[in-house]
Amino acid sequence: MTFSLKALVLFLTLVPWFSLSQESISYADSFEVKSTVLNESRRYSVYLPPSYHNEGDKRYPVIFVLDGDRSRLLSISGVVEALSTSTLARQIDEFIIVAIPNTYRDRDLTPTATDLIFKGKELAKVNGSGGADQFIGFIKKELLPRIDKTFRTNGQNTLVGMSFGGLFAAHTLVTQPELFNNYLILDATYVWDNNYLNRMLRQSTYDFSTAKIKVYLALANNDHIGEHGEVNRKWGNDFITQLQSKSSENFMIYSQYFPKERHGTIEMLGWYNGFLKLFGSHG
Amino acid sequence: MTFSLKALVLFLTLVPWFSLSQESISYADSFEVKSTVLNESRRYSVYLPPSYHNEGDKRYPVIFVLDGDRSRLLSISGVVEALSTSTLARQIDEFIIVAIPNTYRDRDLTPTATDLIFKGKELAKVNGSGGADQFIGFIKKELLPRIDKTFRTNGQNTLVGMSFGGLFAAHTLVTQPELFNNYLILDATYVWDNNYLNRMLRQSTYDFSTAKIKVYLALANNDHIGEHGEVNRKWGNDFITQLQSKSSENFMIYSQYFPKERHGTIEMLGWYNGFLKLFGSHG
Repeated sequence: MTFSLKALVLFLTLVPWFSLSQESISYADSFEVKSTVLNESRRYSVYLPPSYHNEGDKRYPVIFVLDGDRSRLLSISGVVEALSTSTLARQIDEFIIVAIPNTYRDRDLTPTATDLIFKGKELAKVNGSGGADQFIGFIKKELLPRIDKTFRTNGQNTLVGMSFGGLFAAHTLVTQPELFNNYLILDATYVWDNNYLNRMLRQSTYDFSTAKIKVYLALANNDHIGEHGEVNRKWGNDFITQLQSKSSENFMIYSQYFPKERHGTIEMLGWYNGFLKLFGSHG
Repeated sequence: MTFSLKALVLFLTLVPWFSLSQESISYADSFEVKSTVLNESRRYSVYLPPSYHNEGDKRYPVIFVLDGDRSRLLSISGVVEALSTSTLARQIDEFIIVAIPNTYRDRDLTPTATDLIFKGKELAKVNGSGGADQFIGFIKKELLPRIDKTFRTNGQNTLVGMSFGGLFAAHTLVTQPELFNNYLILDATYVWDNNYLNRMLRQSTYDFSTAKIKVYLALANNDHIGEHGEVNRKWGNDFITQLQSKSSENFMIYSQYFPKERHGTIEMLGWYNGFLKLFGSHG
């Protein structure tokens, strides 16, 4: 015991010497929460902006990122940090970013219990689908309050989703619009459940014109995958047109079509242009 | 002593318990090197791609980033990680990224000893200017060998610079072209020393047509700052035209003008488009 303690003290004495020449650069923290709503343990990652620890009173808006894996957290943090610092002339405010990695993506991000079917043909099995409302419950009752309690937030929340994540964000916009102030919806799965999103929006009795909400929607060119790619864009455009018909000075809709981008390549241009549209002073 | 050791052991025992619920996410490391060439201590940051620790044999190309502060390292890492992983459909290879923060920017990134003067009028004092060749010496003799020794590099090196960093990258391309395989030059300071870059390139006797080098150059619209903004773009275009006249199957020149971007806002679009042009399979 005496020897190992000696070794330990020696090691601890040496640590500052080592760290002089090599230091790990961290940019976010990962947290765990036991979710009662989902009855499982969930992790989430939090990026704090450069000024956070120097500005003791300042409160920050929050961006919530679906499909929040390592690469997506790093990429979105990079885009936001560049746009909000002198790197890109401080075109937007600084943000706290909360990324939510998946446990059961097919379950959490889809609003109804069905496979991915287009014109009667099954495009993909979607196991355990239809959990979006439960996942909204987790965000609303457990994650959002936790973030507001732990960090200096200002109550302005943005939801970012792509593909099934875009489907989830659009479903949240249609069914619980006031949960977020801003939505960034990138090439969502509009073919889901035979035009589900347009159907739900048409049925909605919510008065969008009075809600202070901004939405940015981007569509990719998926003609190369055939008819369901073309129809996904058509129904996406229908969804945008429906939203625009409800738009006002409060409810603002921005949309962009990227003819050179496919479903798999649209995200970074979507984030970059979307954040500038939603948050830029000369959007 | 006994008590403090006890406390220490108790603390160390508790650490794993704390880290279960909160973990720091690091994405790069910062190193220090005592430079003989520059006679000062320098730091540099190294980002390793996601696959680095899983692929024990794989060797990676390296991107060197000038003006390599915290935000630029994070943003470029984010762009490269998105483009090289499934986030953006693996459009480019994975890269090691080495960012070099400044100590004396005005000294290291400028090739001649002068202030920033345009048509006889001083636009800005540039203290201790003219150290670019010394800084090239540091990169060539000290930094590059160190990176090659420490990490699994494949000998393919790219230099990225913006503004004075672009001036430095273009100066390196003209005077020591083979030091890098690829150059990404964003809105460089072409007005430096009364058209220095074009003058040097005209004087060069180097046979560029046989060198396997790719260059991407981006220009912003700086008309709003007046004549020296317009002339900077004109001389930038002259530099591009001179390079193109030397181009071949080996020496490839890509250039892009961003009419909606200013000097301060061009970087992210320059990185994104530049990496795709230089490294994308369907550039």
